[in-house]
Amino acid sequence: MTFKATILTLYPDMFPGPLGHSLSGRALDKGLWQLETSQIRDFAMDKHRSVDDTPAGGGAGMVLRADILARAIDAAAPAEDPRPRLLMSPRGAPFTQDRAHELAEGPGAVIVCGRFEGVDQRVIDARGLEEVSVGDYILSGGEIGALTMLDAVVRLIPGVMGNMDSAETESFEGGLLEHPQYTRPAEFEGLTIPEVLTSGNHRKIHEWRMAEAERLTRERRPDLWDAYMADEDDVD
Amino acid sequence: MTFKATILTLYPDMFPGPLGHSLSGRALDKGLWQLETSQIRDFAMDKHRSVDDTPAGGGAGMVLRADILARAIDAAAPAEDPRPRLLMSPRGAPFTQDRAHELAEGPGAVIVCGRFEGVDQRVIDARGLEEVSVGDYILSGGEIGALTMLDAVVRLIPGVMGNMDSAETESFEGGLLEHPQYTRPAEFEGLTIPEVLTSGNHRKIHEWRMAEAERLTRERRPDLWDAYMADEDDVD
Repeated sequence: MTFKATILTLYPDMFPGPLGHSLSGRALDKGLWQLETSQIRDFAMDKHRSVDDTPAGGGAGMVLRADILARAIDAAAPAEDPRPRLLMSPRGAPFTQDRAHELAEGPGAVIVCGRFEGVDQRVIDARGLEEVSVGDYILSGGEIGALTMLDAVVRLIPGVMGNMDSAETESFEGGLLEHPQYTRPAEFEGLTIPEVLTSGNHRKIHEWRMAEAERLTRERRPDLWDAYMADEDDVD
Repeated sequence: MTFKATILTLYPDMFPGPLGHSLSGRALDKGLWQLETSQIRDFAMDKHRSVDDTPAGGGAGMVLRADILARAIDAAAPAEDPRPRLLMSPRGAPFTQDRAHELAEGPGAVIVCGRFEGVDQRVIDARGLEEVSVGDYILSGGEIGALTMLDAVVRLIPGVMGNMDSAETESFEGGLLEHPQYTRPAEFEGLTIPEVLTSGNHRKIHEWRMAEAERLTRERRPDLWDAYMADEDDVD
């Protein structure tokens, strides 16, 4: 079974976009994952192909209609489709590295990209859409959020990254930010590489990296640090 | 002064990508913001145009060299360039709607997109790069993070959105997630629009929306709710 993403959008031309390049693009070419888009506008019911209407109760912006979006969802993913149905939305649960792993191990995802002021709540309820947010900021629509989420997921699909070691020592894997990195040249504008890293002493290198990862996490992300320390306590 | 983004990347073809469509694409066509890319590989110093090397101290992956990236940065943005220099990185400060507003009010941004295992720490220090993260997950490189950040910023540039009201009632503006939305038809699969929204009573509609925004934030994002309540206390 190959991971398959189906994107419901008013802008199918945005896909694969950046996912057609580099790691995810090569994986797409090799068939390690599949991507299809569905134009929500094709499910409109009037000659103007309108998909949205004004918000009930008034206010700015336009709201994507429940009936039209439901038709698009049902065409893309019948009830027996096992894939999770996600709605990119700033009101959603924050997307995390753990969720990326979960999705990468599954059959794929049906991803609805909202636009305008939002999506009629009734289609979210009736089709069991899971709202997902890539961060605490507002995008012009769900499309760039979907690209972001898929990039994080696709690289974790088996066979996509050449060297799985690389994924295991990254930020968030293990609950800490990653330690600083250095490479040649040995001296850059008078700045040298920390001596321990060129010592050849693997134990000391590991200790230094761990201490730096802990320091960075404590300084920059007290929220992650507290969660990390709580986990450590559980282990004791 | 027009907002200008300069992207340093190994994948300039990823830009403008999704930002060439819809709201940000129209704004780019109208000259409301500018986008240029710089190919980091053009600053390599060997015939293979290599830009990375193995991590000092060992480990998986490759690290972007300080000297080559510094040359690319200096060519794109001399010392007197007033724009902030950002490095997309999962180790960075989380990008927020407040930061999007700050950037949208400024002259633009120089955005470095990392790839591989990371960027030599010395160029981060020597060029004062500010590390920014779009979320707690790992992307295949900084490019999609840069697209995400720019999408959030560009829509806030004056003149880009037709109706500024729309931006003011969204999630995070005011510290709460947005209330649910509804539109026609009045009935969808037996589900109706909450009565208050069709009552015409604007005070009651406002109260209902506020209560729903508070409920959603409390249920889904206790972290935002605590911050919101702390702010409310400060006002008292």
